[in-house]
Amino acid sequence: MAANQSAPDATRRSERSRRAIYDAALALVAEVGYPKTTIEGIASRAGVGKQTIYRWWTSKADVLLEAFLDMAEQAAHAAGHVPHALPDTGDLAADLKYVLRATVDELRDPAFEAPSRALAAEGVVDEELGRRFVASLLEPQLQLYVDRLRSAQDTGEVRPDVDPRIALELFVSPLAQRWLQYTGPITYDYTDTLVDYALYGLTPRPPSPTPTPTDAGPASPARP
Amino acid sequence: MAANQSAPDATRRSERSRRAIYDAALALVAEVGYPKTTIEGIASRAGVGKQTIYRWWTSKADVLLEAFLDMAEQAAHAAGHVPHALPDTGDLAADLKYVLRATVDELRDPAFEAPSRALAAEGVVDEELGRRFVASLLEPQLQLYVDRLRSAQDTGEVRPDVDPRIALELFVSPLAQRWLQYTGPITYDYTDTLVDYALYGLTPRPPSPTPTPTDAGPASPARP
Repeated sequence: MAANQSAPDATRRSERSRRAIYDAALALVAEVGYPKTTIEGIASRAGVGKQTIYRWWTSKADVLLEAFLDMAEQAAHAAGHVPHALPDTGDLAADLKYVLRATVDELRDPAFEAPSRALAAEGVVDEELGRRFVASLLEPQLQLYVDRLRSAQDTGEVRPDVDPRIALELFVSPLAQRWLQYTGPITYDYTDTLVDYALYGLTPRPPSPTPTPTDAGPASPARP
Repeated sequence: MAANQSAPDATRRSERSRRAIYDAALALVAEVGYPKTTIEGIASRAGVGKQTIYRWWTSKADVLLEAFLDMAEQAAHAAGHVPHALPDTGDLAADLKYVLRATVDELRDPAFEAPSRALAAEGVVDEELGRRFVASLLEPQLQLYVDRLRSAQDTGEVRPDVDPRIALELFVSPLAQRWLQYTGPITYDYTDTLVDYALYGLTPRPPSPTPTPTDAGPASPARP
């Protein structure tokens, strides 16, 4: 009976500790950068013992990657997104514009920005961390674009010879570079334009019934 | 007469010191990162006094930015490029592929890679440095693409309503992101594909006399 009563308490305590550790790790890396973030520092800020952290994770990189995954999941749920698929209304341009506008919002969220920049900066000079960061956090998101572009290939909206893993970079990478390197403003107009340029190309199209970006009318899909 | 003889010697000494300072700054930032690079450290490694550096520059950021500009100029001259213009053979796809292949070579050059990564990483978390880095080093290169795309608009190869400053990001930014974040391999095939996708678009084109990427034949321009 004592065991029955203590189990839920222990679970609640664990859950509370886990969340405190995530919060502490994200705040600390944003303040002092990745190299100066330590398990000791995270534990002290979270108000837990070092052993509590080492019971669940083996390194600060592991703690941080999970904290980022958790933050991304929570943000997606808060915004009402399904985190594991892109919208598929049958209108590729509209769906891509919708998702990229949501990404613009996310990139401008201060809670996301500082820790993400600290981890991204370290990934630029630490190849092993960079590759883990991409494999765990970025590539799964990029695969959602791959899935959406494949479905557009099935319906004939995208050429069958296009490699979706490269094609997605035409609109995702410009936004990423503007965020990483401050090469230009990040706005809805900008990401809408990227989608139009990527889908229809920079060279003139011969006249045809295919709608072009300039005569396609309002691009936002109707959403409930 | 003594003054006449010493002047060329002083110039040679200055030039030698300047080069030693550039080399020391690039080597040091590659080894210890931007935050731990100091004027003292650069001076000591270059074998010059601190005052020599402060006579020419006011901060480590200034030294590094000039060292990078110098490295880029030297690399361009060594490769036989004209550093201030993109080729214009009248074949936009071929010219872009040629320049991006040269960029692939540059990104893979170890002399370029380590110091560039150190500065780029710091720019991700230090907005002021990031903006200076872009304004001094990156934006002038991007403007060469703007010029080339404008000339392609004049000849009708690019749609007149396209904004060249955004359009260039469709092929430049994917390469930049793969380099910065290890999101994929960097090859000639890859950059050639980016150019084809950007120019002709991901959606099918109606049949027309316009060549498409799949039937355009060998893409490399004939070069002397």
